[in-house]
Amino acid sequence: MEAFTFETAITVRFAETDAQGVAHNAAYLVWFEVARIDFLARYVQGYKHIQELGYEAVTIETHVRYLQAVHFDDRIVIHARCGDLRGARFSFEYALRRGGELVADGWTRHALLDRTTMRPTRFPDWLAEALDPADGA
Amino acid sequence: MEAFTFETAITVRFAETDAQGVAHNAAYLVWFEVARIDFLARYVQGYKHIQELGYEAVTIETHVRYLQAVHFDDRIVIHARCGDLRGARFSFEYALRRGGELVADGWTRHALLDRTTMRPTRFPDWLAEALDPADGA
Amino acid sequence: MEAFTFETAITVRFAETDAQGVAHNAAYLVWFEVARIDFLARYVQGYKHIQELGYEAVTIETHVRYLQAVHFDDRIVIHARCGDLRGARFSFEYALRRGGELVADGWTRHALLDRTTMRPTRFPDWLAEALDPADGA
Amino acid sequence: MEAFTFETAITVRFAETDAQGVAHNAAYLVWFEVARIDFLARYVQGYKHIQELGYEAVTIETHVRYLQAVHFDDRIVIHARCGDLRGARFSFEYALRRGGELVADGWTRHALLDRTTMRPTRFPDWLAEALDPADGA
Repeated sequence: MEAFTFETAITVRFAETDAQGVAHNAAYLVWFEVARIDFLARYVQGYKHIQELGYEAVTIETHVRYLQAVHFDDRIVIHARCGDLRGARFSFEYALRRGGELVADGWTRHALLDRTTMRPTRFPDWLAEALDPADGA
Repeated sequence: MEAFTFETAITVRFAETDAQGVAHNAAYLVWFEVARIDFLARYVQGYKHIQELGYEAVTIETHVRYLQAVHFDDRIVIHARCGDLRGARFSFEYALRRGGELVADGWTRHALLDRTTMRPTRFPDWLAEALDPADGA
Repeated sequence: MEAFTFETAITVRFAETDAQGVAHNAAYLVWFEVARIDFLARYVQGYKHIQELGYEAVTIETHVRYLQAVHFDDRIVIHARCGDLRGARFSFEYALRRGGELVADGWTRHALLDRTTMRPTRFPDWLAEALDPADGA
Repeated sequence: MEAFTFETAITVRFAETDAQGVAHNAAYLVWFEVARIDFLARYVQGYKHIQELGYEAVTIETHVRYLQAVHFDDRIVIHARCGDLRGARFSFEYALRRGGELVADGWTRHALLDRTTMRPTRFPDWLAEALDPADGA
């Protein structure tokens, strides 16, 4: 894939830390989701818009690598990109940076469902192109 | 109200702790909810049963007093009781104990809704009596 | 107290919703905390600064009123103010607004501890005045 | 690896569901952790015991596959096993079942640290053998 072109940021909440004094491992999946939502807001008018058009996306696989401990109040920039659209499936990749330092990365895989039947459905072309211009070519 | 007669227990999860080394204040509301669910399972065949009969309950007020710090892996017994059924409203009271020690207490208030209209609805007698025998008398 | 003069904002995360389709009741305590952290960042150089000076603050009581359901992606403005500094204790009040509409409010009470002894300690004057100018007068 | 021989169970909390009506993807990492904690309680006298002996374990990688949607109040049996002890690293594998049905699986990788230096440290033999008898042979 090409370089990450989308980014958003979060600040680590106190509630996201644990008794080891660092952000809990499950919080990263919430941050990945925040990045996906922001990504969809920028490129396809938001997740709600996708729902209104009759689609739902579900998460089918997640992967996180924790490279450096992250602490309360750290500002984390999340770089995200969408790709690998095949049939009803797509994936997101993420890189989390604090200052210039890579502190974590990972990816998630998803399936696009028809909201009426809740069964996997092929991407409409406009959505495939909006999410991954390279793929739609 | 009479003494607490219902109890359930949770063990503090590592994910529920924060960087102060204690359970985070928001976790207590989750534990209160666990106790409500267990209470409803015992006395009215579960929350799902209430939903199937056409009702939904929403939380309209919560209150917690944190008396002693609670730590990872602590076993907490939650004493709960239901009361104050008036019109569409009801409340729960909670006392959290570790060993014999009271570590927190609180209460929550709820409204019973009709699932179709999502508007407040009066308690059916059978439910009022099951939740608070003293009130139904 | 005087009118709320401090405000910050959050956007409801998907992870903060529950199967009723609204933000879960425990999420509000996390948002209150986000507002406290932002408040302390503005008025006393941040919570970390307070810790470096030898203090720790713990939450001893929380109260929330849920007035209107809040949904995924709603932007919520949190108005917060600090007050009631007495001895080692202080409180925060919160009002949550979506557009102009009040959707929830509440308050939290806290104790200031000496980080070395972890026992309650009186507010230093500079901190009392920074948090609540009216009180320090 | 040999078949899973350890199992523990959780019941899906209402707070763990999201607006899609299913358990949120981040909750699975919390459940994995609950299973690790229970595993350590059974085989090495608990995580606190490991800490008291001067060790800390940190999570360095997580992976989850979501195979079937999981709902509020579902009882999930978590099968877990530990393995791949090499130097300071070890991993856990998990299989989540509802009734007889596999609903999710995954694995996590961890590093063992010396609590004083917070640097990776080799497993003491007794711990390696307790966690993974096959490896200690």
